[in-house]
Amino acid sequence: MHRTLSVASSPVRDLLALTSRPEVISFAGGLPAPELFDLDALRAAYSVALQDRSVLQYAPTEGNSVLRSLVSERLTGRGLPTSDVLITSGSQQALTLVATALLEQGAVVAVEEPTYLAALQCFQMVGARIVPVASDADGLSVASLRSVVAAERPTVLYLVPTFANPTGRTLSAARRAEIAALAEEHSFWVVEDDPYGELRYRGSAVAPLAAISDRTIYLGSFSKIGAPGMRLGWLRAPAELLRTLVIVKQAADLHTSTVDQAAAAVYLAHNDLDAHVARLCVAYGARRDTMIEALPAAVPDGTTWTDPDGGMFVWLRLPGVVDSAELLKEALSYDVAFVPGAPFFATTPDRATFRMSFTTNTPEEIVEGMARLAKVFR
Amino acid sequence: MHRTLSVASSPVRDLLALTSRPEVISFAGGLPAPELFDLDALRAAYSVALQDRSVLQYAPTEGNSVLRSLVSERLTGRGLPTSDVLITSGSQQALTLVATALLEQGAVVAVEEPTYLAALQCFQMVGARIVPVASDADGLSVASLRSVVAAERPTVLYLVPTFANPTGRTLSAARRAEIAALAEEHSFWVVEDDPYGELRYRGSAVAPLAAISDRTIYLGSFSKIGAPGMRLGWLRAPAELLRTLVIVKQAADLHTSTVDQAAAAVYLAHNDLDAHVARLCVAYGARRDTMIEALPAAVPDGTTWTDPDGGMFVWLRLPGVVDSAELLKEALSYDVAFVPGAPFFATTPDRATFRMSFTTNTPEEIVEGMARLAKVFR
Repeated sequence: MHRTLSVASSPVRDLLALTSRPEVISFAGGLPAPELFDLDALRAAYSVALQDRSVLQYAPTEGNSVLRSLVSERLTGRGLPTSDVLITSGSQQALTLVATALLEQGAVVAVEEPTYLAALQCFQMVGARIVPVASDADGLSVASLRSVVAAERPTVLYLVPTFANPTGRTLSAARRAEIAALAEEHSFWVVEDDPYGELRYRGSAVAPLAAISDRTIYLGSFSKIGAPGMRLGWLRAPAELLRTLVIVKQAADLHTSTVDQAAAAVYLAHNDLDAHVARLCVAYGARRDTMIEALPAAVPDGTTWTDPDGGMFVWLRLPGVVDSAELLKEALSYDVAFVPGAPFFATTPDRATFRMSFTTNTPEEIVEGMARLAKVFR
Repeated sequence: MHRTLSVASSPVRDLLALTSRPEVISFAGGLPAPELFDLDALRAAYSVALQDRSVLQYAPTEGNSVLRSLVSERLTGRGLPTSDVLITSGSQQALTLVATALLEQGAVVAVEEPTYLAALQCFQMVGARIVPVASDADGLSVASLRSVVAAERPTVLYLVPTFANPTGRTLSAARRAEIAALAEEHSFWVVEDDPYGELRYRGSAVAPLAAISDRTIYLGSFSKIGAPGMRLGWLRAPAELLRTLVIVKQAADLHTSTVDQAAAAVYLAHNDLDAHVARLCVAYGARRDTMIEALPAAVPDGTTWTDPDGGMFVWLRLPGVVDSAELLKEALSYDVAFVPGAPFFATTPDRATFRMSFTTNTPEEIVEGMARLAKVFR
């Protein structure tokens, strides 16, 4: 009697269930390292926040005003002048709000291919038509975007320009400028999803698209620099669109947890998040290097991989005609896991690809996991 | 360039901003009394939960397994046998998930009129067509529902059967049975929104529709019996539909805050929520009585009002041709507030109606607020 939704469960999240056996070394999930969570400071922040009983009450949809100010100041300090943000229940919610506000049934969304698969889910959920744009080592191909814009007139371009999921690639500054000009000329919205931007291990920052284009909706998150369990994200958009998104959020969940927001505001006010992120970068950078160094001995000759400057992911392609989903079954028998690449493609998948996350495991676990992978690929 | 959403911001939430001046005695919001929050026990529960760093990590979409068990046991103990629930970010999110999963553009939703206005927002957001069903002192009129079902073939019937928002009325057991039979015969879904059911101040419980019909989606919430700031709700539905709703939730926000869920699980395991609810009922029952006793002297002759057995709301109708929204402006000049009734109507509003909440203020504040109202209506 009810309609069948044309949206499947996320293969990554389903996979997390399979890989939760403690003996499995999983490179599958995009999980921060739990031992690096700032647990004591966060516990203290909750305790301080819960001195005030108003944190247990209903609250404005826009979000905690102190948290909004602190996040806006932080974005401004990092080169993205920001007067206000909408606090969301993780940036995943921001994607759904944007999809609901901007995309009617049949509207076209252009996406880098491959891309974050849960974004594809959001767009499919509202009945949008997803059109892929090719990418290379410098990120989205502007030539490919030009053809897509001319042929399909997209309402939205979605991309993770910095340390992309799943590829780890970063869109060059020159291409960002070209994309901003195209958005202006053809009046499409750019959804710039930036959960990883602060996790840079080498090289220097590239300004966000939102800093050069008013047609950009910028999504940030506490999940990768703080703690994903708190489900806190933020959305920066032109004022009129922000007001529409507040109304959509009101219907979605009234507001994000008053407790989590207040604890995050206390945490940001009383702790040095920059110093914490610097510690994360040291640890994650070493893990990145460990994985990249172990790769040649673990994978078949002819395998290619990305060499990310930050973020969480390496993206690989095996030689020949292989299906990484089949190899995953074998990998699980050796107690090691990765994510097959197919679900990250909106259209025709390249089944020889797969994604590996280097942040979740210690360097020692990475070395052991890569040794197990070598047996799979032997 | 982007579509204009045909959904307005909630007048109640906008009003909350206007009534936040500390000198205003507001009967407008459906807010629990903050001084009755179990603050110390909840702070302790967060502290215990945050001993385990896994509460800062990503988590399964379905929700914390201990919390799901505790909620299921509690529902079962209250006469609604329950094997599993989906944890949602407040029951507001559950409404959006149900709307996304079940309602295509143009699908028909039958609603009691008047009804919870943020539910109307959810249904409008997905482009559903809302058809009102008349109600009287015993709740939804079954005769009216029969005509609507015959003429409109709704996909969903939405109602708050116990201590309804905004009327405070409770649907009789006999009518529940008739509605269950109609749902079975005509294969529509009943969405039973039950945030207030435990707040009964007199009389005895009426079994939920979900206990007598498998075509019911039951929504519960921690907001009125615990703390709304934690944004925790639960959804009970037949297994197949529950699986679909989990996928929709995955796209909506991946999962509800791991921290808030873990704290709620600790709280439920180590505290007597029944005893806390009993204390709420004593306090709220006295506030209800205070408001009802003060009404005759405060409102014009010929005003009618409901006499709720529980919940948070009294629903009133002024005599003659008046617009309660105009009277609200005057009320605010006397530092007292209520919610005009019009937004609770899906179709033609009865502008002489308004809603008053008796839970937020102390009996002394209620007496003072009613005295101010008397000046407005003089």
